[in-house]
Amino acid sequence: MQITFLGTSSGVPTRSRNVSAIAFRLPQKAEVWLFDCGEGTQHQFQRSELKVSQLRRIFVTHMHGDHIFGLMGLLASCGLAGNVERIDIYGPPKLNEYLTTCARYSQTHFSYPIKVHTVVPGTVYEDDEFIVRCAPLKHRVPAFGYRVEEKDRAGHFKVEKAKALGIPPGPLYGQLKRGEWVTLPDGRKINGATLCGPLQPGRKFAYCTDTIFCDSAVELAQGVDLLIHEATFAHQDAQLAYDRLHSTSTMAAQVALAAQVKQLMMTHFSPRYAPGNSLQLDDLLAEAQAIFPNTQMARDFLTYEVPRDGAESEN
Amino acid sequence: MQITFLGTSSGVPTRSRNVSAIAFRLPQKAEVWLFDCGEGTQHQFQRSELKVSQLRRIFVTHMHGDHIFGLMGLLASCGLAGNVERIDIYGPPKLNEYLTTCARYSQTHFSYPIKVHTVVPGTVYEDDEFIVRCAPLKHRVPAFGYRVEEKDRAGHFKVEKAKALGIPPGPLYGQLKRGEWVTLPDGRKINGATLCGPLQPGRKFAYCTDTIFCDSAVELAQGVDLLIHEATFAHQDAQLAYDRLHSTSTMAAQVALAAQVKQLMMTHFSPRYAPGNSLQLDDLLAEAQAIFPNTQMARDFLTYEVPRDGAESEN
Ligand SMILES: [Zn+2]
Ligand SMILES: [Zn+2]
Repeated sequence: MQITFLGTSSGVPTRSRNVSAIAFRLPQKAEVWLFDCGEGTQHQFQRSELKVSQLRRIFVTHMHGDHIFGLMGLLASCGLAGNVERIDIYGPPKLNEYLTTCARYSQTHFSYPIKVHTVVPGTVYEDDEFIVRCAPLKHRVPAFGYRVEEKDRAGHFKVEKAKALGIPPGPLYGQLKRGEWVTLPDGRKINGATLCGPLQPGRKFAYCTDTIFCDSAVELAQGVDLLIHEATFAHQDAQLAYDRLHSTSTMAAQVALAAQVKQLMMTHFSPRYAPGNSLQLDDLLAEAQAIFPNTQMARDFLTYEVPRDGAESEN
Repeated sequence: MQITFLGTSSGVPTRSRNVSAIAFRLPQKAEVWLFDCGEGTQHQFQRSELKVSQLRRIFVTHMHGDHIFGLMGLLASCGLAGNVERIDIYGPPKLNEYLTTCARYSQTHFSYPIKVHTVVPGTVYEDDEFIVRCAPLKHRVPAFGYRVEEKDRAGHFKVEKAKALGIPPGPLYGQLKRGEWVTLPDGRKINGATLCGPLQPGRKFAYCTDTIFCDSAVELAQGVDLLIHEATFAHQDAQLAYDRLHSTSTMAAQVALAAQVKQLMMTHFSPRYAPGNSLQLDDLLAEAQAIFPNTQMARDFLTYEVPRDGAESEN
């Protein structure tokens, strides 16, 4: 479960930080899911080790330009690269209209199917392994936070033990692997759980941007292994955060604390905190860590591996 | 008169070439004019020595994504940078609608005036120093080539000679500087031209993309100091050029030859000619030079100074 930050600046790109985009790599599916797609996201893909051909889903938080202006270019390039099978896009109302309109004006014809889903609070996507939920945040336009949960997996199935019990290989194994009770042809009842190792709990992350501190962010982030939360401003500039409905670093930390997350990763920084200014990103980090010590700052191309058992891991 | 290439790839960006954009720097006005604006053009500005705050005019050739998807982001950033006075945009029908629609969906409010002008063949813009004309090219959607002419300037005024003739300083000097005849208070008639150095002929460049070889490109480029012409394909791939209404390198050279230009700069290269492939950009250059020897290949961030007297200059 790998998260790669492709853009960590708010509003405008800087020389070292692009506007918002986060890639979620699912090695077991050979898929990449993207969260937001600011201008230049396709360029960031090229500079990373991610494969655009694996792009399968895009989740959009809100319709501000620094989160969507890279969509059309990326989708067009996926078509020209020629090896994308299908892309599902999830986002706020009007996203579909926006994309359709841009495609019409620019006469962009996609060579693969694209389906845009308008999200409503609740479950956005579910398959055997993952469930994605969203909740409304508090911004100047409708904005949604996303929570991605890997489903718990049954423990390793003990084949040798099953054979020793004289259970014939076949469809029964599937039920036993899932920890179910089965009745054998000879009448014996077997509890599958006794043939499985310990349950592997699924990992969880949440992505909350753009928003000021809000209760629904706390709910969405409840107990996740990784909370990615915007921190556009320093605490000292809280008035700007209130005016523009963005978060300060202290608000991000308060969400992490209240939701009892394992790790907070802050992103979406105002360019005003660039090196050389009176307040810098180290100050935002210190402010947040005073409230929630397990806080880090995202930077472009940082890859964070969500650990299985709370063991920290980053490269 | 400085031209800086900000994007020289066609269709999709590569690691070393962005999609189309060309900046024209007018040092005497402290203005930058842009021709086309593919995705990531604002990022290219940041990597160049150009100042986005000097951006004053944008000329758009056609509505394909690789020429317009950077517009909204650049215009929004100009607003956030806060020091742009006004931007005039010139382009095909529907460009205004496209921008207005994108601004509405993304709730982008510009803090400075933007005026979009729909071009028709002929004069697009004129001031004391420059005249910009456009002509329709031959592509899959309406596309316009642009020709920028610096107006001829009167030669250096010989003040000492005027004083020696006893001409009183004042408004008469203005007329004489422009090479006009004036009548002095004492009745003498003086030809201003005799008091001026040799006329400084204005420099001219033309930008033709996207297009297959066409007569209107030849007309537009007639006698220019610099012709920037697309060369998406190698001669060997001419069938692709015919299918998609793009140019081969040989077509670009034929336009340059027929229009008797001083210098041809080719751009808008298909990524298929990247290093390591069987045909490479050196092959496109050789093909063109066989027809028009004074040919160069554009690359991102190449700055070409259009010389005053046909003396070649590049840095
Ligand atoms: Zn934002
Ligand atoms: Zn093009």
